[in-house]
Amino acid sequence: MKNAQYSTHYQVMYYDTDCNGVVHNLAYLRWVEECRTKMALAIGIDFLTMAKEDQLFTVVVRHEVDYHSPAVMGDEVQTSGIVESVEKSSIWFRFEVRRVSDSKKLISVRQRLALVRMPQGRPCRIPASWFDLVAPQED
Amino acid sequence: MKNAQYSTHYQVMYYDTDCNGVVHNLAYLRWVEECRTKMALAIGIDFLTMAKEDQLFTVVVRHEVDYHSPAVMGDEVQTSGIVESVEKSSIWFRFEVRRVSDSKKLISVRQRLALVRMPQGRPCRIPASWFDLVAPQED
Amino acid sequence: MKNAQYSTHYQVMYYDTDCNGVVHNLAYLRWVEECRTKMALAIGIDFLTMAKEDQLFTVVVRHEVDYHSPAVMGDEVQTSGIVESVEKSSIWFRFEVRRVSDSKKLISVRQRLALVRMPQGRPCRIPASWFDLVAPQED
Amino acid sequence: MKNAQYSTHYQVMYYDTDCNGVVHNLAYLRWVEECRTKMALAIGIDFLTMAKEDQLFTVVVRHEVDYHSPAVMGDEVQTSGIVESVEKSSIWFRFEVRRVSDSKKLISVRQRLALVRMPQGRPCRIPASWFDLVAPQED
Repeated sequence: MKNAQYSTHYQVMYYDTDCNGVVHNLAYLRWVEECRTKMALAIGIDFLTMAKEDQLFTVVVRHEVDYHSPAVMGDEVQTSGIVESVEKSSIWFRFEVRRVSDSKKLISVRQRLALVRMPQGRPCRIPASWFDLVAPQED
Repeated sequence: MKNAQYSTHYQVMYYDTDCNGVVHNLAYLRWVEECRTKMALAIGIDFLTMAKEDQLFTVVVRHEVDYHSPAVMGDEVQTSGIVESVEKSSIWFRFEVRRVSDSKKLISVRQRLALVRMPQGRPCRIPASWFDLVAPQED
Repeated sequence: MKNAQYSTHYQVMYYDTDCNGVVHNLAYLRWVEECRTKMALAIGIDFLTMAKEDQLFTVVVRHEVDYHSPAVMGDEVQTSGIVESVEKSSIWFRFEVRRVSDSKKLISVRQRLALVRMPQGRPCRIPASWFDLVAPQED
Repeated sequence: MKNAQYSTHYQVMYYDTDCNGVVHNLAYLRWVEECRTKMALAIGIDFLTMAKEDQLFTVVVRHEVDYHSPAVMGDEVQTSGIVESVEKSSIWFRFEVRRVSDSKKLISVRQRLALVRMPQGRPCRIPASWFDLVAPQED
């Protein structure tokens, strides 16, 4: 699949918020994980089979998260992801979470995942097919 | 060990609260799990070794939780546990969470754990030594 | 609305599981909260407006949770709820979570919510219309 | 206080882990929040009073997280924080989480917090006293 894109929708729950009245900074990262997990399966990165048959795991090795504006209880949000780039033994995803009602950008995230073989945790070479997943650069 | 008792202390964090301004109902149950986990090790229920060597697991099969009064951000709380009773293949714990400053009871919990052998999940007989862990009944 | 029923769907994520290989007991209760929250709005219990305009809050005062069988990473689950009964100042919900692929019942939950007026937390009388929400008894 | 340093200890619980057998990437960030929250109070950033009296809030605006090595169930971990730098309207913290038994570095985190006045969310000038909190640069 070329130029893979994926998005998920979610409605903010009480357990996502904190007593400052807005969504807690860690809750957004659960939504990003949900988007990344479903996206991976949708674009052909079958991590469940890879783990079971080849002891290969994709593990998060870096997060960069910018918080732009807060969501509140009840908000409908959309999380959108692309594959930003692929390196020898890791893959970068980029995500945005926006409120549906006004398209306001709430957070942006870059995540680097490494491919490792367990139980030693040795880095493995990214499959050639994953290089096609990279989204075209925006200008 | 007879009449096992155990308690843990905790300070309420933002991620424990929700936008109603008080601690979210699920957060208390993390504190109870921390108390139960440390208590088990302290009173001789070495679940980590049991799992590794005998494929025996203690699994929560029932919660009964009463919420009496809410905690708020920054509160110091104490979680206290006892073994309430032991049956053929399960053990009941009872917990209370209280605010330290005024001893106010915040929640009370009864939890039943079963002892099962994996991977089939077959119920196993509770070790004889666990029967000594039961706390004396209050009148 | 009479005989209110409601259900939500969910796919199990890594953050729902623990190192015993199955879903952690607290994760199921987030799914139940999602079902209850969306159900409340769908059946006319507009807790967001009640909180803002009348300082009325529905607060969980009791959970009874039975864990029957575990879900694992990737499972599709359905959470279904009904209003079990209504009392002078509280309402009981009942929920079941089932795996979609084999309809296996994973957990069942009874939750009692009280209606209270903040900031004093004084119990309030349940609106008459809520009594119609009760599901018919199964035999 | 000059060269503020702070550390907290924690024992890994089941709810911190996932079915890959190690700690889930979001769990570490709860430990970092606990360290930052207690550190702030210890070094004189009284965010509870600031929020109540002046409607001033410190909000996380950026996370950079590097995952070096995983923790497992039962590990004792130490989270250590310093103030890395202070700018006109924000403050950077740096944290490390290490396993106590072998001092292995598990994750490193940089977090930028902004000082904002609610409800408008307008950026505010950092108090002069906070500039003294910055730790000396390591060579």
